[in-house]
Amino acid sequence: MLKLHNQLTELLQITYPIIQAPMAGGITTSKLVAAVSNAGGLGMIGAGYMSPDEIRIQLKEIRRNTKHPFGINLFIPQKFSLKNIENATSFLKPIKARLNVTDENKLFPTEEQYLENFNEQVKLVIEEKIPVCSFTFGLPSKEIVSLLKEASVIVIGTATTVEEALGIEKLGMDAIVLQGSEAGGHRGSFLGECQESLIGLMSLIPQTADVVTIPLIAAGGIMDARGIAAAMCLGAKGVQMGTAFLTCVESGASQVYKDAILNTTEVRPVLTKAFTGKMARGLKNTFIIEMESETEIPDYPIQNLLTKELRKKSSHQNNPEYMSLWSGQSPRLAKHQAVMDLFDHIISQLEKLEII
Amino acid sequence: MLKLHNQLTELLQITYPIIQAPMAGGITTSKLVAAVSNAGGLGMIGAGYMSPDEIRIQLKEIRRNTKHPFGINLFIPQKFSLKNIENATSFLKPIKARLNVTDENKLFPTEEQYLENFNEQVKLVIEEKIPVCSFTFGLPSKEIVSLLKEASVIVIGTATTVEEALGIEKLGMDAIVLQGSEAGGHRGSFLGECQESLIGLMSLIPQTADVVTIPLIAAGGIMDARGIAAAMCLGAKGVQMGTAFLTCVESGASQVYKDAILNTTEVRPVLTKAFTGKMARGLKNTFIIEMESETEIPDYPIQNLLTKELRKKSSHQNNPEYMSLWSGQSPRLAKHQAVMDLFDHIISQLEKLEII
Repeated sequence: MLKLHNQLTELLQITYPIIQAPMAGGITTSKLVAAVSNAGGLGMIGAGYMSPDEIRIQLKEIRRNTKHPFGINLFIPQKFSLKNIENATSFLKPIKARLNVTDENKLFPTEEQYLENFNEQVKLVIEEKIPVCSFTFGLPSKEIVSLLKEASVIVIGTATTVEEALGIEKLGMDAIVLQGSEAGGHRGSFLGECQESLIGLMSLIPQTADVVTIPLIAAGGIMDARGIAAAMCLGAKGVQMGTAFLTCVESGASQVYKDAILNTTEVRPVLTKAFTGKMARGLKNTFIIEMESETEIPDYPIQNLLTKELRKKSSHQNNPEYMSLWSGQSPRLAKHQAVMDLFDHIISQLEKLEII
Repeated sequence: MLKLHNQLTELLQITYPIIQAPMAGGITTSKLVAAVSNAGGLGMIGAGYMSPDEIRIQLKEIRRNTKHPFGINLFIPQKFSLKNIENATSFLKPIKARLNVTDENKLFPTEEQYLENFNEQVKLVIEEKIPVCSFTFGLPSKEIVSLLKEASVIVIGTATTVEEALGIEKLGMDAIVLQGSEAGGHRGSFLGECQESLIGLMSLIPQTADVVTIPLIAAGGIMDARGIAAAMCLGAKGVQMGTAFLTCVESGASQVYKDAILNTTEVRPVLTKAFTGKMARGLKNTFIIEMESETEIPDYPIQNLLTKELRKKSSHQNNPEYMSLWSGQSPRLAKHQAVMDLFDHIISQLEKLEII
């Protein structure tokens, strides 16, 4: 039987070293977050796109439903240019027309506005004493890390390479989510070219474990006890699972999205910038194929705003072809079940794992 | 301690479920193959580019040095066109001039000649009763599989997706090498687009293990006991390691090649068609960068022939910049050591693995 109590469970004060990935865009409902924390893991709010007010509402709901620790994830604000907007708008026009989407984005928030929202999010994390705060798409400032730590918030960074992991440790953060090439959704890469940092967990974990001392949390394609045991053999102290929780009963993903994952025999979710302007992994659909001929996609988060209504409408029409169907590389292992059943299954599977 | 005796070690009649990858191009010397088999693993001849006569010489040497089973790997002949040869030749001309390479390829073997060599290789495997024969780049015919099995040769296929693995099992082969996206050298993909079958072992192994009954051999980024334990937790019965054996004392890789891997802090060997016309993973060097502007690379094996002398000369000049430095995604774990030391280290590391 795998030793489940370690440096990471101690740090986070949880029973099992299983973290629910902070999937943004409405998936991490209060029910999901609370259910994961109640089951002995760490529920996480995917707050990247949320305003402080929206976060406050969710915090109340979660705290009503669990006494256990939980966490929040924030996106480091990105530099972006405003080029290619016109091109992209005309390219999207006939597609939007087909789905009766009538929006016309004219105003885009500035880099300063994103930064302001981020700073308010950080302030809120401190005021509300959220137990754990993780970051994606880069490093927060040294000052933010200090302020969070002074408020006893556990601070976690996201890395896709050994170099990025070293940067996170150097900044004094408490743990690292190591995102392998298997992971669904956005790539967290922030140094060098994203394409070159698609490293499988089999390589990424041991090479990082050899040079970093803070606990590593493996993310990407992990869906059950086999993946958890493997990640821990390689040197991780725990795992972060996205797709496995996305298809759970408590998740806020739409039924059409859950079904797309549950019904796929496909094991090759593809990388695309089509939906948001930032590389992310999801099931291939009509939109991704149509966008293959569009070479000048605007930067993130501009493209994200341009396709927002389209994705929403596609979901409302129960049409999986124009939604972002983010998924890791293991969709065949996804199940529709309650969070508690997922945990029960993992624990009993760990006890039976033949080789250990 | 990991259970090392299983369905695969029984099938191959070896002590440890560790197979040395059949790296082509002179790396799998008779010394290397025999040393691996003597240490309790399975040594493999990378015979893809070899003539039957060359194979016969090596067989004699290996049999003089080991009484244990060993294997051979053959390349399934590929369809190719002769287009882009002129373009590529002029593109390569100034590069070759810089290194004083004076070759001018004028004659290229035909598809039929490749097929003929392959058929002779298969005949030799049967005549010589080589214990194990694996294939890469596709499926042999049903007839070849039958002939090999009648001669008591154990037949292994190479897959990069669940679908490819199912095809191998359906053909009646005995085991499957599952090549994850982490693997160095050529991609073994043969169904669909190569780019889309870059699946990390964390995802590829369990999804395949759920639907296939013959033993799975995991390949890609595995360098030590941690990777072996992880692969077996995920459902593999053993591993195939390339880079880990490439830097061993007994390997035929040149010193400049071994040093390039041993000295890298880089964990992102890239995918390129630059050297052979077929996608392969290796350390980034000047040739790969220069070839990025060449969009019309001839098919494999034409490009392989066009760059052959260049790579050879680069190696003779101790210049790593124009050689193919194939490497998996874990070069930081490579060590210069004797094969026996690698095995000793793995076995003692397995005994100490903390989590199991």
